[in-house]
Amino acid sequence: MSDYLRCDQTPAWAALRGHFEAHGRDFDLREAFARDAGRFAALTVQVPEIFADLSKNRIDAATLRFLIDLARECGLEAQRDAMFGGAPINSTEGRAVLHTALRAPPGSGLFSAEVQAVLDAMLAYADSVREVAGDVGGDGGVGAGSGFTDIVNIGIGGSDLGPRMVVQALDAHAHRGLNFHFVSNVDGHDISQVLRGLDPQRTLFIVASKTFTTQETMANALAARDWFDAGGGGGVALGVALDRGKHFVGVTTNLEAAAAFGIRTTFGFWDWVGGRYSLWSAIGLPIAIAIGGTGFRQLLAGAHAMDRHFAKTPLAQNLPALLGLIDVWYRNFHGFGSRSVAPYHEGLRRLPAYLQQLEMESNGKRVDASGQTLPYATSPVVWGEPGTNGQHAYFQMLHQGTDVIPVEFIAVKKPAHGLADQHQKLLANCLAQSQALMLGKTADAAAAERAPTASTSMPNDALARHRTFPGNRPSTTLVLDELTPRSLGALIAMYEHRVFSSGAIWGINSFDQWGVELGKALCNALLPRLVSGDVQGLDASTAGLLQRLRS
Amino acid sequence: MSDYLRCDQTPAWAALRGHFEAHGRDFDLREAFARDAGRFAALTVQVPEIFADLSKNRIDAATLRFLIDLARECGLEAQRDAMFGGAPINSTEGRAVLHTALRAPPGSGLFSAEVQAVLDAMLAYADSVREVAGDVGGDGGVGAGSGFTDIVNIGIGGSDLGPRMVVQALDAHAHRGLNFHFVSNVDGHDISQVLRGLDPQRTLFIVASKTFTTQETMANALAARDWFDAGGGGGVALGVALDRGKHFVGVTTNLEAAAAFGIRTTFGFWDWVGGRYSLWSAIGLPIAIAIGGTGFRQLLAGAHAMDRHFAKTPLAQNLPALLGLIDVWYRNFHGFGSRSVAPYHEGLRRLPAYLQQLEMESNGKRVDASGQTLPYATSPVVWGEPGTNGQHAYFQMLHQGTDVIPVEFIAVKKPAHGLADQHQKLLANCLAQSQALMLGKTADAAAAERAPTASTSMPNDALARHRTFPGNRPSTTLVLDELTPRSLGALIAMYEHRVFSSGAIWGINSFDQWGVELGKALCNALLPRLVSGDVQGLDASTAGLLQRLRS
Repeated sequence: MSDYLRCDQTPAWAALRGHFEAHGRDFDLREAFARDAGRFAALTVQVPEIFADLSKNRIDAATLRFLIDLARECGLEAQRDAMFGGAPINSTEGRAVLHTALRAPPGSGLFSAEVQAVLDAMLAYADSVREVAGDVGGDGGVGAGSGFTDIVNIGIGGSDLGPRMVVQALDAHAHRGLNFHFVSNVDGHDISQVLRGLDPQRTLFIVASKTFTTQETMANALAARDWFDAGGGGGVALGVALDRGKHFVGVTTNLEAAAAFGIRTTFGFWDWVGGRYSLWSAIGLPIAIAIGGTGFRQLLAGAHAMDRHFAKTPLAQNLPALLGLIDVWYRNFHGFGSRSVAPYHEGLRRLPAYLQQLEMESNGKRVDASGQTLPYATSPVVWGEPGTNGQHAYFQMLHQGTDVIPVEFIAVKKPAHGLADQHQKLLANCLAQSQALMLGKTADAAAAERAPTASTSMPNDALARHRTFPGNRPSTTLVLDELTPRSLGALIAMYEHRVFSSGAIWGINSFDQWGVELGKALCNALLPRLVSGDVQGLDASTAGLLQRLRS
Repeated sequence: MSDYLRCDQTPAWAALRGHFEAHGRDFDLREAFARDAGRFAALTVQVPEIFADLSKNRIDAATLRFLIDLARECGLEAQRDAMFGGAPINSTEGRAVLHTALRAPPGSGLFSAEVQAVLDAMLAYADSVREVAGDVGGDGGVGAGSGFTDIVNIGIGGSDLGPRMVVQALDAHAHRGLNFHFVSNVDGHDISQVLRGLDPQRTLFIVASKTFTTQETMANALAARDWFDAGGGGGVALGVALDRGKHFVGVTTNLEAAAAFGIRTTFGFWDWVGGRYSLWSAIGLPIAIAIGGTGFRQLLAGAHAMDRHFAKTPLAQNLPALLGLIDVWYRNFHGFGSRSVAPYHEGLRRLPAYLQQLEMESNGKRVDASGQTLPYATSPVVWGEPGTNGQHAYFQMLHQGTDVIPVEFIAVKKPAHGLADQHQKLLANCLAQSQALMLGKTADAAAAERAPTASTSMPNDALARHRTFPGNRPSTTLVLDELTPRSLGALIAMYEHRVFSSGAIWGINSFDQWGVELGKALCNALLPRLVSGDVQGLDASTAGLLQRLRS
């Protein structure tokens, strides 16, 4: 965006630098709450489907004012409008970025006719699979019914992480007659383990690859087809003719290759849908089969509500923009290198993996959109595990480690199960962790207690220093009333726009991924060498490892 | 260890500082290989079960010499010997640290009689479960056979991550008549999803909690017992009397509480086995059921071989020590904040989660063993996903992000499946990634090509800057010949000792976890408030969130 200054050359950046030195470096959350009784009200927002508490972050009204100035000076709003308007903001590939068009209501949005045509066909197909799902005949015998029991999605990256995460998250809304499997890794252990125990007559494979040439996906699809053609490898077919065209569908734009593979049913998408933004397109087919056409449209509607919020709400109340700006504040002023995501909902256990692609592939870049090397840090590392599990693993370090790592808690008010007591415990844990991170515990408070497992031979004051918590560790808490297709759609769209916002401040093209090119090229060059053993011209390490790995 | 200087006060630290300024900051891996034809040979080691290539790290002979001086000056060897000798090196709890004794051959090692007695009993039980596993009677009818089909491990933290990771990793070695499930999160969605579809008559629950009071584990165990007592919630029992004592076993030292729960069979362990080091103890029961007594003894033997290596090998050839020292070099001199673990084996998909606890709970501390606040950084963030999946997610950032993130590749020469072509692709990808990270790609090389998806309207030189890779990004590659109980045992023990080594340099007590205390205490205080709605005395954020979450 050449109309705007690079972020570190704006007046707002200089102002933020001064603000950080004066009030940011030593900002204390406990003092901030003590000073300002209105802090919680001022630093929470209710947006579609999400209540967000930003008040446990190291910010105040002045910080936000400067950050919003920064957003204006970097043209965040103009860049956002360019995205929604279909401008080719993915400049290195000359493409528009229009995943938002996939969730616009019928008749509105760009490319509406094409989008709705594919969506209607995809949802009709999904509902037809659901209608007879699990119907394996009255006596449970092979061949008696006509339905599938198992859906295997074969895809990698954006063709895997989004659908997998959403299908897991919406388990309570999913068809009970269907089991979902996701195969992504080219490692044959992945597909082998999934195929074991499946019945080819009852299995539907979805092959998801835009080009139908993705190395990992095609290798797995061919393995699945071999297994299918062999009738399950053990004569399971019992003489019933199996039809590839019924058991394999494609999500691809390469109709020719899909047809050659034996696929008759395909659903396409467009070059303005990036892989990591594609779960809203036909890539979402496993989601649609799980939750049905109605559920899928609710997912889209939730995302669209967030699109409207991001597009229309002033920055001071705009959740994706605010979180993106806080990310910049933490990364470039506080120097925090990572952010931990803690979804207190087991269904969201793959959200961190999904966000790793969304954020780190979008903003893990060292040049700006024009190709100039950037002198400041961009995407942090994003990582985490669900709910209380992390507390028993790495939360030790979040509380008492040497680095400050902002944590993002996600809490869901209403569970989809009847274990009310466990849900209370879950929520109490979530609240207690953000409270503990902020409040900490002084050495005096620690010294006033005696921990049951403490050594009796260690002096109490030394022990108290081990049991001291510095506190002042920041967190954000996002609250959903319930985990539904609609609220999940809004949550994911919120993350997409947050990544867009920080990327826009940093001046990055968040929609290309040139960093994956080199490894692919070198892999293709190494494959024949693994067979031939030829190591000429390789560096000594790669040569030595290759020889070590040849069988 | 008061006999030794704190690491940053040693002569070696000062020497490393000088070495870093002179040769470390600008160290270039490509030049290092060009300069020294013997680099690969000099910087690889073959240790029990693992071939390790350290040559793609930013080190040379001089770096290693200074790092080994540092280890000596910090008393790494003496601290190691103290651990193996049973000294109470967990000083804040006054405990010895003897997970190594769990894998010493019968008749050797400390506490051998007690260890072998529990081990023998546990393995005999595991083998008895295996013998009739899946035997549900000739007609497949309920009650006809006597065996289990499903094993549910209920535990959290160390009672979950280790057993879960190992059972997944050794899938090819596991009993085919048994399905394994792991429940850890207090979130009721976890246990609800696991119980759905299980048959109480065919299910064995393992309740793993040293004290039998762990909040999450007891909540899940009670939910499982309710479900069991109700016969599966749907009259599945068909009049057959179900015996709690047969379907629930305990891994605990609290026999009284277990008996009150209805458990007759328990296996214990000792206070010198830390949670995150406990998979070798009775906590490994699910592993023993999966791979049998013989397999479990091989796992122990592999770990013991690594123990011997760590205990007896000079530091210059000692893999755990070398990797721990490189971790210090990267963290405290290069300033790298995280390390990415990339196991190129789908079975190792939970290794990063396991290592998060092992490393971050052990060394995520800000005081030394005597309680003095440390002025230097300790444990990095450890994170990652398996195999080729990461390449399609966050590897963009590893190649082209602004931060340097060392990567740890794990490759396995021989697969446990017959898809030879996929295995070649997997290995080629693994080699290509470390090669690409190191070699990078110059702007000139990028400009000489034309990427197929590139925008035609972007000038070639600008595009080339997007397609440039800085290279010189470090990695370690660990090669196993095959993923077996023995090699996995060695690999895990190697990681344990590596964490010990960096912790010993940093002067940390790697065996306590006081940082988990505060959150537990605050959770207990918040639980009644979630019921009563009383927010008096709470900070405004916690109060506001609590009110928002009350139903």
